[in-house]
Amino acid sequence: MKLGRLNHIGIATPSIQDSIAYYRDVMGATEIHEPFDMPSNGVKVCFVDTPGENGTTGTQIELIEPLGADSPIHGFLAKNPSGGQHHMCYEVPDIHVARAEFEAMGKRVLGDTRIGAHGTLVFFLLPRDMNGILTEIMETPKAGAGH
Amino acid sequence: MKLGRLNHIGIATPSIQDSIAYYRDVMGATEIHEPFDMPSNGVKVCFVDTPGENGTTGTQIELIEPLGADSPIHGFLAKNPSGGQHHMCYEVPDIHVARAEFEAMGKRVLGDTRIGAHGTLVFFLLPRDMNGILTEIMETPKAGAGH
Repeated sequence: MKLGRLNHIGIATPSIQDSIAYYRDVMGATEIHEPFDMPSNGVKVCFVDTPGENGTTGTQIELIEPLGADSPIHGFLAKNPSGGQHHMCYEVPDIHVARAEFEAMGKRVLGDTRIGAHGTLVFFLLPRDMNGILTEIMETPKAGAGH
Repeated sequence: MKLGRLNHIGIATPSIQDSIAYYRDVMGATEIHEPFDMPSNGVKVCFVDTPGENGTTGTQIELIEPLGADSPIHGFLAKNPSGGQHHMCYEVPDIHVARAEFEAMGKRVLGDTRIGAHGTLVFFLLPRDMNGILTEIMETPKAGAGH
C-alpha cells in the first residue's frame, strides 16, 4: 500500500441545503457541485471543492445527508445533531489490489466493493481497525472521466 | 472570505507513536515529519503528508496526542478512545483580516490568535457556529518558510 491522494473528507449534515449556504456564505467556497441522491448508499451527496497547491484541485468536502429511513448516517447524526466529520477517503490506482492488501493485513472491510459517489469503485474499512477513522478507499477516476 | 487551501485534518490519537506506525505500515505514508511538543496548546504534534495532484503536497494529517493533564483533547479522547477526526484547518492570506470577517459574521472565536503548529498565526472557531466542525484558520506560511 502506498498512501494515495486524500480525495475527500466526508461530512455528515442534517441539511445539505444549509451546509451549502454555510460553505458558500461563511467559508467562501465557489466550486459547489450539484447535489444528487445515492439511494444505494442511503445518502444525498454534494461535493465542495477546495483549492490545492498551484491551481490544482485539493481535497474535496463531501457533504452527506441521510436519504431514507435506513440511511447508515442516522446514528452518527443522533450523536452529532449539527453534523461533523464522518469519514476520510483516499485514492488507490486499483481497488481490487487495495482490498486484497487490507484484507491480508486483517483489516475488516464493511460490505461489498461498490460504485461510489465519483462513479468509481469504493469500499469502507472498520474505524476500529483504522486508527479510529471510518476510511473509504476509492479507485482514482481515469483522466477525462470527470469528477 | 474566500475558501483557502485545506491545510490539514487534525486527528486526535491516544498514541502518536502507534498512529505513525499505522500511517506508515497500513496506509503506506512515506513523508512523516518529526513529532514535537506544543506545551502552549497542550498537545504533541506530528504531521503526515499526503500527495496532492501533479506532485503537489496535499492536505496533511496532523496527529495530536494529549500533552499534560490540562490538554484540551482529553475530553475528545474520553468520548473516542481510539481517536478520530478532531478539526479541519484552512489557510488564509491574512489572519487578522480573517478573524475580523468571522467575528463580523457573529462566529465565536475560541481564545486568542496564536502561533500554530506550522509557525504561523492561527485561531479556532466554535463548532456550533461552523456547521458542526471545530475549524482552525491559519495564515499561509510564506514561501520558503518551510512547513
